[in-house]
Amino acid sequence: MKKIILLIVFTGMLSKWSYTQSSLSSKYDLMPWPKEIKENSAKFIINSDITISTNTENSKRVRNAAISFLRRLSNRTGVFLKEGFPLKNKKGSIHIAFDSISDLNIKTDESYTLKIEDSIIEISAKTDIGAIRGLQTLLQLTKHNASEYFFPGVTITDTPRFVWRGLMIDASRHFQPVNVIKRNLDAMASVKMNVFHWHLTDDQGFRIESKVYPKLQELASDGLYYTQEQIKDVVDYANHLGIRVIPEIDVPGHASAILTAYPELGSKTGYNYTIERYSGIFDPTLNPTKDITYEFLENLFKEVTRLFPDEYFHIGGDENEGKHWNENQDIQTFKQKHKLKTNHDLQTYFNIKLEKILNALGKKLMGWDEIMTPDMPTTAVIHSWRGKNEGLPDGGSLITAAKKGYQTVLSNGYYIDRMLSVEHHYTVDPIGDIQLTNKERSRILGGEATMWSELVTPQTIDSRIWPRTAAISERFWSAKTVNDIENMKKRLRTVSFNLEELGLTHIKNRAVILRGMTNNQDIASLITLANICEPLKVYQRNKGGIEYKTYSPFNLFADACVVDAKDALEFNHAVSSYVEGSNHEDQIISYLRLWSKNHDRFSQLQKNPKITPLNTLSENISEGSNRLLKAIQSKHISKENIAAIKNLITILNSPVADVEVAIINALNKLVTFCQTHFYKNNN
Amino acid sequence: MKKIILLIVFTGMLSKWSYTQSSLSSKYDLMPWPKEIKENSAKFIINSDITISTNTENSKRVRNAAISFLRRLSNRTGVFLKEGFPLKNKKGSIHIAFDSISDLNIKTDESYTLKIEDSIIEISAKTDIGAIRGLQTLLQLTKHNASEYFFPGVTITDTPRFVWRGLMIDASRHFQPVNVIKRNLDAMASVKMNVFHWHLTDDQGFRIESKVYPKLQELASDGLYYTQEQIKDVVDYANHLGIRVIPEIDVPGHASAILTAYPELGSKTGYNYTIERYSGIFDPTLNPTKDITYEFLENLFKEVTRLFPDEYFHIGGDENEGKHWNENQDIQTFKQKHKLKTNHDLQTYFNIKLEKILNALGKKLMGWDEIMTPDMPTTAVIHSWRGKNEGLPDGGSLITAAKKGYQTVLSNGYYIDRMLSVEHHYTVDPIGDIQLTNKERSRILGGEATMWSELVTPQTIDSRIWPRTAAISERFWSAKTVNDIENMKKRLRTVSFNLEELGLTHIKNRAVILRGMTNNQDIASLITLANICEPLKVYQRNKGGIEYKTYSPFNLFADACVVDAKDALEFNHAVSSYVEGSNHEDQIISYLRLWSKNHDRFSQLQKNPKITPLNTLSENISEGSNRLLKAIQSKHISKENIAAIKNLITILNSPVADVEVAIINALNKLVTFCQTHFYKNNN
Repeated sequence: MKKIILLIVFTGMLSKWSYTQSSLSSKYDLMPWPKEIKENSAKFIINSDITISTNTENSKRVRNAAISFLRRLSNRTGVFLKEGFPLKNKKGSIHIAFDSISDLNIKTDESYTLKIEDSIIEISAKTDIGAIRGLQTLLQLTKHNASEYFFPGVTITDTPRFVWRGLMIDASRHFQPVNVIKRNLDAMASVKMNVFHWHLTDDQGFRIESKVYPKLQELASDGLYYTQEQIKDVVDYANHLGIRVIPEIDVPGHASAILTAYPELGSKTGYNYTIERYSGIFDPTLNPTKDITYEFLENLFKEVTRLFPDEYFHIGGDENEGKHWNENQDIQTFKQKHKLKTNHDLQTYFNIKLEKILNALGKKLMGWDEIMTPDMPTTAVIHSWRGKNEGLPDGGSLITAAKKGYQTVLSNGYYIDRMLSVEHHYTVDPIGDIQLTNKERSRILGGEATMWSELVTPQTIDSRIWPRTAAISERFWSAKTVNDIENMKKRLRTVSFNLEELGLTHIKNRAVILRGMTNNQDIASLITLANICEPLKVYQRNKGGIEYKTYSPFNLFADACVVDAKDALEFNHAVSSYVEGSNHEDQIISYLRLWSKNHDRFSQLQKNPKITPLNTLSENISEGSNRLLKAIQSKHISKENIAAIKNLITILNSPVADVEVAIINALNKLVTFCQTHFYKNNN
Repeated sequence: MKKIILLIVFTGMLSKWSYTQSSLSSKYDLMPWPKEIKENSAKFIINSDITISTNTENSKRVRNAAISFLRRLSNRTGVFLKEGFPLKNKKGSIHIAFDSISDLNIKTDESYTLKIEDSIIEISAKTDIGAIRGLQTLLQLTKHNASEYFFPGVTITDTPRFVWRGLMIDASRHFQPVNVIKRNLDAMASVKMNVFHWHLTDDQGFRIESKVYPKLQELASDGLYYTQEQIKDVVDYANHLGIRVIPEIDVPGHASAILTAYPELGSKTGYNYTIERYSGIFDPTLNPTKDITYEFLENLFKEVTRLFPDEYFHIGGDENEGKHWNENQDIQTFKQKHKLKTNHDLQTYFNIKLEKILNALGKKLMGWDEIMTPDMPTTAVIHSWRGKNEGLPDGGSLITAAKKGYQTVLSNGYYIDRMLSVEHHYTVDPIGDIQLTNKERSRILGGEATMWSELVTPQTIDSRIWPRTAAISERFWSAKTVNDIENMKKRLRTVSFNLEELGLTHIKNRAVILRGMTNNQDIASLITLANICEPLKVYQRNKGGIEYKTYSPFNLFADACVVDAKDALEFNHAVSSYVEGSNHEDQIISYLRLWSKNHDRFSQLQKNPKITPLNTLSENISEGSNRLLKAIQSKHISKENIAAIKNLITILNSPVADVEVAIINALNKLVTFCQTHFYKNNN
């Protein structure tokens, strides 16, 4: 009986909540969606008199955030503000109050309330971090009509679902300069992410200046590394945005760069260690049986941990296949002597030693889920990257880790370098329907989107991270029930556009690449193609890791294309509706007409070796579109035409120039529909 | 007699040379145009086997330049290179040889020869700086056909006309982060500029971290300053590109920021010194009669000169009107005591003291031309910024300085913040037709484009510097006789486009601004307008310096517009030809049709306060174009139509939203033409 009442109450709350989201989230493009939002009838007009104040001037975070807020607001609205800085000793029309300054750690309270009335806006929070989260929400609420910009009257109470909402950037495979990192930190802060995981070392380069082991940057970075000053600057910058920075030094595998500088630490004597130019998993591995290895790591960690105040420290630990261990007789002898049966046992031996080093430095060891071996202490933090696709049970290593007593963070499902749709990532919930005890639940810290950089450069990385990562941030911040995909996509369009304010290049660099491809000719026909093509997914591009080297060109057509290709999304949606009887014919015809005429325009381009590979693709899309267009317009299709269209679709279904055409399914649906409805046997 | 023969020989050489430029410069988009270029029949195909080598591995400049060359070549052509780095101990298909490594100073030899044959390219130079200049030329020679990229067979012998080819960036009025500076250094190097003059202090902010006087950055920078590490990094980066860096600390005027931090150095006691938010010339001035002023400057210069290895050091010295000096009785008494009649005399007293401090630090004092007073030693370097417009005789302060015995550098005529056409700057020759002795000539070191930043932000600064500065660089590098404006404009289009490779934002940020203005609507109608509008010129924008504050929005329509508006240039050219009887009617009709239809598209935009001010402009352009279009197409115009068009032109001739319409003269010509040719009195 009690249970039934509870169920009714719960369902009632849920549906009421869902109703609120669906009605308000069609009005406000907030992301991540807040915990609670209530409307009132107020309207706060944005004019030159706006001022901002804080209850105390002792948080540089809030001061910086307030200044940045004023700049962005002024730029967004064109309003010339009289006061460009927070008021001193006076209350502004926007007032921020908070109780304490946060140390910025995993326990930081990020909650806030935001109340907008006609002439006053109040943001209040327990900590300065909560306050700056509230400011981001306020900025997202900017609305306008023809004559003015304003903030709508709402009261928001907000707090995150998970404490760890991260983005990992791999700066090893392709180095990413400080300004790339900073603009991505700004973007993260704008969607309330709070962990930047910096993958700083790998086979392709060691990216930290070491004063103790300078050969690391001298011999193993191609001159592309962060100085210690730059690292401090980035950490400080992130701190002011309320973002913790976790460094990763990936060991004992992924060690080609380290061993290029210090081959004596390697597991294979006489091996010619060099900076890796290809992608993949490689054999060079630190030797876990030598004292000098631990001496090296202890000194290095001592140096590096001084740059990163956060308690967590990532040691990688992934994808070590132990080939060089097997090939080294001394290591085999060592294993026998220490009763280490497998290479996994040997790696656990290594990891436990590292954990002691890190603990002595006041740090918690974090590693990819391979470190979760039976003997690994539960003081380690498990970064779950493997799941169902890697043959693990439902919940993957994340749930296993939480149940075993480890703190854990999820990245399985958030590998944005796999070039999967935003919908795919958004529907991955860290916990899903799995039942956990409170204790187990508390060990699931959150998740991280991972931007591995084998195929991205500073020019393209933003378009691979954004806007999809904003939707992932919502998954980490907002309630599990915030899951309406179409609504998310609508809000994401605004969020994506607003990221340009911060200098993100995910939109503007497409045209740069296409201008480059055409030697500065009219790029309209290539934009039309790019709007229905997507880069190959799940590592089909660069098969075997040997098609591209780190210094190969990454400004090709595939690099101008993005996941969730704009026109493809709309067309696919229209076709699905159309074949189910809904009236989307006009939209379909309009797209087919655009594509049928596109090859004429493409043909006018003076050709060069970068454009030529697209010629057949362009031609086939135009021909297929033209044939379908005629069939739909005339409500008539011939047998020959059906065959011809199907043949074209088959050809289009093969990747060209590292892209796939993202309207194949819709074209198939359309030709089937035409065949069913417009084909008369007697023709 | 001898004279006549010489004249004939000279004329013959000149016309031959001119012929060579005109024929080859229509084929090759080199900028700056080299001293000598000869074609041969070779063709060097760019394929994956290309390698690069150097005669010695001891120049990091050449190594970096070679790697950068390979990356850009690969990106530009899409060719996947097998070797991404210079070969060691093997000769590559591109071979670079040089004799010595330059100290990088004013005497550095920058000459080089470049020889392209079928399968080998040789660059040879006296110094490594010459070698990297040659590599830039080679990259500019990249050509292609439908199936391949190649370098055409040429032999180039090249050397600059002036040793000082600079760009000044003002980082005080609007702070410009390190990445903005670095990408502009890359751009400078690509057109062989060799001096970066960094204007680091002014009323609006002190931008250098001082460890001796930390209040400078703490109280006088709004947190926007370069750390000493960042400055060293920039200087090092520039050095590798063969660019000297000259710092400027502007004293005794332009001192609001310094005096905000250290008011005790000011000339007016009790004055409330604050960071200046407006633009203009302000009163705060260092007190030249106090010992602490010189103590401060000596310590500061000691600290700053350690960051800048170059021999030259800029002390500003401009625009001190001495108002606070006049208002200070102690200063007046000091003047009398030291027999200093005028404030100029007092400033000379100050400058001479500074010169001694700088000389002791091994530096040459450089200052704006106000420092050239009768008593100023000729060891100072005069930076000429005033000329005819400022009431000076022909040749301005530059020629006067050279004749008086000063080394001198010209910026008069190269103030790119005045928003004048590229043609205007290109036709300013530092020496012109003035006769100088060899000695006088040798004192004219060269020139500098000056990017004052009152009205530019990191988002817009590139579009204010480029591409015009590339043409100015040609003026400084190439022969005076390289002066064909249409040909320069043709080459400049390619140079401008290629600057995008380096991350320059002058092209791509226009769309960002317009997307922001429209809240992410279709920006086509605004692009059409922007292509015929230019930002107000010669400081008409921000009249009196009080319309905009430093924190006002600079992402308005005017900021999306650029000098030399693309469509305006073409249209104006077509109209000039048309009214003189040449057949450009189709082109004119095509533009008029575009503009006549544009307001329909503009009208579809959902309005907001940023777009609304453009409504009348858009409407009038469409209406005027439509009326002219009909007249030209029908070869008929009525009296009423003439009056209506003239009225519209009058309205369009008034600035709107800080832009001017750049086709006014052409429209006037057209309506006059129509009146003359198509108006029949009896209608």
